[in-house]
Amino acid sequence: MSKSKDKNKQTADAVPKAVVSRLSLYLRELQRLQRDGVVTTSSTQLGQLLGFTDAQVRKDLAHFGHFGYPGVGYRCSELVSAVKQIIGTDHTWPVVLAGVGNLGRALLGHRGFGHQGFDIVAAVDSDPAKHGKTLDGIEIRPISQLPEIVLEYDVRLAIIAAPAAAAQEVAERIVAAGICGILNFAPITLHLPADVAVSSVDLAIEMEQLSFAMTNLRPPEDLQSNEGPLVE
Amino acid sequence: MSKSKDKNKQTADAVPKAVVSRLSLYLRELQRLQRDGVVTTSSTQLGQLLGFTDAQVRKDLAHFGHFGYPGVGYRCSELVSAVKQIIGTDHTWPVVLAGVGNLGRALLGHRGFGHQGFDIVAAVDSDPAKHGKTLDGIEIRPISQLPEIVLEYDVRLAIIAAPAAAAQEVAERIVAAGICGILNFAPITLHLPADVAVSSVDLAIEMEQLSFAMTNLRPPEDLQSNEGPLVE
Repeated sequence: MSKSKDKNKQTADAVPKAVVSRLSLYLRELQRLQRDGVVTTSSTQLGQLLGFTDAQVRKDLAHFGHFGYPGVGYRCSELVSAVKQIIGTDHTWPVVLAGVGNLGRALLGHRGFGHQGFDIVAAVDSDPAKHGKTLDGIEIRPISQLPEIVLEYDVRLAIIAAPAAAAQEVAERIVAAGICGILNFAPITLHLPADVAVSSVDLAIEMEQLSFAMTNLRPPEDLQSNEGPLVE
Repeated sequence: MSKSKDKNKQTADAVPKAVVSRLSLYLRELQRLQRDGVVTTSSTQLGQLLGFTDAQVRKDLAHFGHFGYPGVGYRCSELVSAVKQIIGTDHTWPVVLAGVGNLGRALLGHRGFGHQGFDIVAAVDSDPAKHGKTLDGIEIRPISQLPEIVLEYDVRLAIIAAPAAAAQEVAERIVAAGICGILNFAPITLHLPADVAVSSVDLAIEMEQLSFAMTNLRPPEDLQSNEGPLVE
């Protein structure tokens, strides 16, 4: 019946990335249930919706506290709020986009971000020909303006959609401007201070997961959750 | 000195996704070394370039055979070929793109795919207004033409860049057309037969990894390699 969240517990244990990924999936399903007017749910139902065992769901949530009610299960709205607090999306994060080529433009037009709690508020590019142009309501500014942008919007997250050759330098300028969280689309490994959180989306790696699975003709491990083996 | 590759070994052990991801990273570094004219390398050097231990590199490669030469290390060109064979990119994979919105257009313009062994050869969309239009040399065709496209190009991989609401149905049509490998960008979990390999790129999940890390103010686990803890 109690709902305790021990923040010390979270920081002390390095919560595996896989758990956080699943938390994101739980949040999405819970929000869907909420929209459908479902009041309570269970680890079994959540698991079934996503292809996880009920034990996995409970184990994941146990990292962060107790959320279930005996005889009731989870209250959807309550669990949505709790998970959003854990993930940090109980508030909006202003984001700066670095690199406004093909991919950058697609990200600017990606309305989904705003709904999830991430709002692209500014964009920078090294190409002077792009400066001053406006895309989806965002003006493209020079990279040198990153520090001002950070102050203006209280930006703490950046997305790098620059070419591989430029990405390391762009990342360093982002960090120098005071941003500690980066989503990197460039197909390189960034070398940054340990206190900078970096998440990568590498399309080649994802495609190679598929070609590997199909080349080796094995029952594919569940790749959808974008993580390691389901059971830890 | 021997280089053995036991395909049965690979299929029998479900090789964790994390190992395959690192294999992709090794391949990229090896190709870079090759381009720079470097003839041999070591697990130590490869590890250092990527932030892994030499033990991790050797352990990963050991899943697939013996590749090193005592006193020499790895021969870059040889290891590149071997890893490409393991990953399946020793040949090109024709790919069909489903969904030509913002993201789909960005993917069509993404030249990198072709270099990596993945070639978008056709595109489909459910919007009749788009049919017949050509983007980056690819004509947008109706989804109903998927079976013809599969035959025409011997397509085995598809990329879904359709909205969440449409993605499950699009996926089912892709599978019905004979394709068993899907890269899914839609923010939903696809429910498909077990013999269909699915890899996901979920931008919200990646951003939430960052907001989680920054909310919980812990030394971030290495998120760059897009996997679980480094050491298995």
